[in-house]
Amino acid sequence: MVRIKEIPAPAVRRLSLYLRHVELLSGRGERTVSSRQLGEALGLTGAQVRKDLSHLGSLGHPGIGYRVDELIVRVRRILGTDTSRNVLLVGAGNLGRALVSHRGFAKKGFHVVAVFDDDERVVGSTLDGAAHLVVRPMIELADTVRKKNIRMAILAVPGESAQSVAEQLWEVGVGGILNFAPVTLRHVDCAIAAVDLAVHLEQLSFRLGNSRVG
Amino acid sequence: MVRIKEIPAPAVRRLSLYLRHVELLSGRGERTVSSRQLGEALGLTGAQVRKDLSHLGSLGHPGIGYRVDELIVRVRRILGTDTSRNVLLVGAGNLGRALVSHRGFAKKGFHVVAVFDDDERVVGSTLDGAAHLVVRPMIELADTVRKKNIRMAILAVPGESAQSVAEQLWEVGVGGILNFAPVTLRHVDCAIAAVDLAVHLEQLSFRLGNSRVG
Repeated sequence: MVRIKEIPAPAVRRLSLYLRHVELLSGRGERTVSSRQLGEALGLTGAQVRKDLSHLGSLGHPGIGYRVDELIVRVRRILGTDTSRNVLLVGAGNLGRALVSHRGFAKKGFHVVAVFDDDERVVGSTLDGAAHLVVRPMIELADTVRKKNIRMAILAVPGESAQSVAEQLWEVGVGGILNFAPVTLRHVDCAIAAVDLAVHLEQLSFRLGNSRVG
Repeated sequence: MVRIKEIPAPAVRRLSLYLRHVELLSGRGERTVSSRQLGEALGLTGAQVRKDLSHLGSLGHPGIGYRVDELIVRVRRILGTDTSRNVLLVGAGNLGRALVSHRGFAKKGFHVVAVFDDDERVVGSTLDGAAHLVVRPMIELADTVRKKNIRMAILAVPGESAQSVAEQLWEVGVGGILNFAPVTLRHVDCAIAAVDLAVHLEQLSFRLGNSRVG
């Protein structure tokens, strides 16, 4: 039994990257991959790869490396994405609409099954590319979370409403929030992942400056 | 002179996080911060913070810590965000429209100054919340990049067009691409940052599973 509480956060982040890469290999018909190959593809040492994957229990086969299909199953199981999960979205603006139709989510087993907004002009309308989703008023939140067994939410509301919505999500028992609002959420005892889009541009900016200097 | 080529990528990523936090402190009127305080706020050791910030040259003051304003100036300079940058966007769908009106970009000095799309039904229209931006046809790409001195692009097109658009961007001299399409870009010699939104959900999923077990 793997004691997943003991996997360091950076290793958990890399598990997602390993998974992406071995899914790609699987799609190409590859059957095995070595720690060195995985490391080269992701810019890590083979030793780092072996250390990270040792958290998944015994997996490597001497002289063969890792079996691609076995690796995919184990990583998905540890990430909790081996079964599909129902997710709700709050905020039916441009970003929310884009996220609902984002094919990357469903491909990874995350299904947006409900959309909420507190704007009366939007409530009751349907979304392009997701006509089965009718935008619901916030007052139906608790009921929907219970009926659809939802534990994760995507927060795509303006910064000024984000904290209050996060508190409502926490109160109705949502355990994880993916926050796109450009504010830090406080006083909610959920797992929170923040998507700070400007950070990515900053990192690009650094690499541009770097290549100019180099 | 700081030799920025030598800063390891994880340290560069943390520079963005330090910057976020010290900007917050500055907004609260704080004048100084210690490596221990920075570490506590970001879940790092003080030693890690001191090591990362040593890449910026001599900055810490014995018995005082870091001066908040000085730290902000130095980090922005090294990230290349001390001056504003013109950015273009390709893809005027829901995601593109959401990104154009994303206030987080402009706050960090990234200004979306042109929007392109290859869909004739969209070309010539303006965007909500950015009425000064008229969607242009792809044929005007080279001309706009030159006239507006654009070196960075945000790619918000469907997966099937992403590779071809990235190649066009590279050909006209764009040096950095922030890719939202769920595909890996190849054969373009630009700095590329990929935003894989599903990775964030996977990480949340792991932490939910984790709290269930713990």
